Amino acid sequence: MKVALLGHGVVGRGVDEIISSRAEGVEVARILELPDRLSDPRMTASFDEIVGDPAIELVIECMGGIEPAHTFIASSLKAGKSVVTSNKAVVAAHFGEFARLAAEHDASFLIEATCAGGIPWIASIEKVRRIDAISEFYGIMNGTTNYLVDTMAKTGREFDDVLREAQALGYAERNPTEDIDGIDVRNKTIIAASVAFGITCTQNLPVSGIRHLSKADMELFARHGRVVKLLGRGVQSNGRYAVAVEPVALPVRSLEANVPANFNLVSLEGSTVGPLKFYGQGAGSLPTGNAIVQDVLDFANGRRPHYDFTSALTYDPMLLVSNYVFRTTTAPEGSERYDGNSWLVRSVTAEHARAIYSYTLESDPDAFYAQLPWE
Amino acid sequence: MKVALLGHGVVGRGVDEIISSRAEGVEVARILELPDRLSDPRMTASFDEIVGDPAIELVIECMGGIEPAHTFIASSLKAGKSVVTSNKAVVAAHFGEFARLAAEHDASFLIEATCAGGIPWIASIEKVRRIDAISEFYGIMNGTTNYLVDTMAKTGREFDDVLREAQALGYAERNPTEDIDGIDVRNKTIIAASVAFGITCTQNLPVSGIRHLSKADMELFARHGRVVKLLGRGVQSNGRYAVAVEPVALPVRSLEANVPANFNLVSLEGSTVGPLKFYGQGAGSLPTGNAIVQDVLDFANGRRPHYDFTSALTYDPMLLVSNYVFRTTTAPEGSERYDGNSWLVRSVTAEHARAIYSYTLESDPDAFYAQLPWE
Repeated sequence: MKVALLGHGVVGRGVDEIISSRAEGVEVARILELPDRLSDPRMTASFDEIVGDPAIELVIECMGGIEPAHTFIASSLKAGKSVVTSNKAVVAAHFGEFARLAAEHDASFLIEATCAGGIPWIASIEKVRRIDAISEFYGIMNGTTNYLVDTMAKTGREFDDVLREAQALGYAERNPTEDIDGIDVRNKTIIAASVAFGITCTQNLPVSGIRHLSKADMELFARHGRVVKLLGRGVQSNGRYAVAVEPVALPVRSLEANVPANFNLVSLEGSTVGPLKFYGQGAGSLPTGNAIVQDVLDFANGRRPHYDFTSALTYDPMLLVSNYVFRTTTAPEGSERYDGNSWLVRSVTAEHARAIYSYTLESDPDAFYAQLPWE
Repeated sequence: MKVALLGHGVVGRGVDEIISSRAEGVEVARILELPDRLSDPRMTASFDEIVGDPAIELVIECMGGIEPAHTFIASSLKAGKSVVTSNKAVVAAHFGEFARLAAEHDASFLIEATCAGGIPWIASIEKVRRIDAISEFYGIMNGTTNYLVDTMAKTGREFDDVLREAQALGYAERNPTEDIDGIDVRNKTIIAASVAFGITCTQNLPVSGIRHLSKADMELFARHGRVVKLLGRGVQSNGRYAVAVEPVALPVRSLEANVPANFNLVSLEGSTVGPLKFYGQGAGSLPTGNAIVQDVLDFANGRRPHYDFTSALTYDPMLLVSNYVFRTTTAPEGSERYDGNSWLVRSVTAEHARAIYSYTLESDPDAFYAQLPWE
């Protein structure tokens, strides 16, 4: 089977290498690269050459970003070529369109590598759904932020200090916004909700990160036997669903609280199988390359995931109600003191908690908050 | 597709129900039951009727035990019928023979339900092996013993007390030997090693359980920041492999140490994907039934797992060397004091530690020991 690679960066090179060494019968025949980087006879700077080549069955997109990735994926599917991608931003933004194009043109669209790196997360959600309805999913889906909070917890250092070190080590981007403001987790949560619930997921969900998490916050929650982690989650019940991304103060003896370094831990709840959790490297060129090649091998072995986003679930924020702790100088309305300058707000939706936080930031730009799950 | 069920106990009934309600295109056409239990027109007491019925493509064995399960599985495969089984004892004892018969008669042999209940463990090992060599696997594979140690840890009660309660609640068998002496984990470890390493695994591995684990032992290891869990594990390197089942004193902040109640957590290490961990219900009629039906659906969708046990790995106990703590009245030879009446033996194989333990039990029938992993 002849495949084409779009992009030959770290991930693209990893995929190229794994395919040539481990994927018998699969050949990377063409590679799309920038005009000034055509260092290999398989390389071209023209996408048309690739999409116009009838020998290419499968296109592997590892460029990242929205455009031209969106145009290239859509054109490939329209040409009846199947697509494997690790690009969470473009899938979160256009999943519905890609799924429809794949169905219309009898092509497959495979996205294992968009979520939780080398963890077989998307394939497991699909497998569970063959038998079970999934009532809930949640998890640590961003390795960079887990590395930051885990290092803060273990060394007692400040956020900015640990972030600078992570940037120096290459664990965090020079511009860390996507990770520390929860945008990366937001995209993965939208994709997981789409697959788990069979919906075109709302783009308009509450999203908070850990930018303002301080050493003092870690100590505050530690006094209460808790560890802060950044979680994405989704729930469905009675024809409704809700999704959210926010810091959560988890009991110190929960599995999530003990996830080290840059690892991910993602969970789902199935009606007959019960809870399932999956742990592994959430990022990195080898785990991501591995997930891409697993999709390529699944396709080569005849797996044809078909995404049907027609289940008529209504987005209802009321499905995600919990208690929240706000660390800020002045008590939010209707709150009671939790500990020192932190305040407990009971039984509000993730959306409402996010609104309180936005309002709080106006007067206290360094304020932090976290969900306080019932045990 | 017409399938037959061998056995209609709790698991069999669950499988029957899940198939009829969730597995479109699959029909349970015949059910083997005891002559005095033929309560359903599909039921027969004659296995020959089932194996002789050309309409039956797949036989689902959920009787348990070695015989007649072994004969029925072998006869079904010889008749070219594929087999799904949840029977870990018969697979651990005859995996090589079943795999050979399946290959010779162009039948499939599916065993997801033999290990870790509803966790997609066997399928994940197979999937990882498409790309990676697996250097190591280990995990909590027995829900009953995890329930016992977790309850002891959380309530500070004695082993016998918690065991009696577990038996009353139906979490433990009236005869608990299979669970508390590690026999169930031994069978699962042999099966996992066979699939992960592509070998006919030795039947002669060191196996220890938690029968003599006391409240005082839990407190001893707690003082050292550790929790005892019963683990099965296997490693391979440079053409050699080793397997063992033994109690392990794990750091309190490891994921394994925080696995609650009767859950399982199984791990593997792949060359490109890195570490992967899978968590879920390790037993129970619904998770086990779920795993069986997942195998049935995989088969219906064309998955044909082929087990090749021809890789020439040599069994070498030297691959599993660690430190061990023995709680006993007299110090084992070459040991140093660990804490009170417990003794540290450094850098010995799992086999040698098991031998020391057997010798120790002769003079101190209540002695306990656990592996002390390097952190």
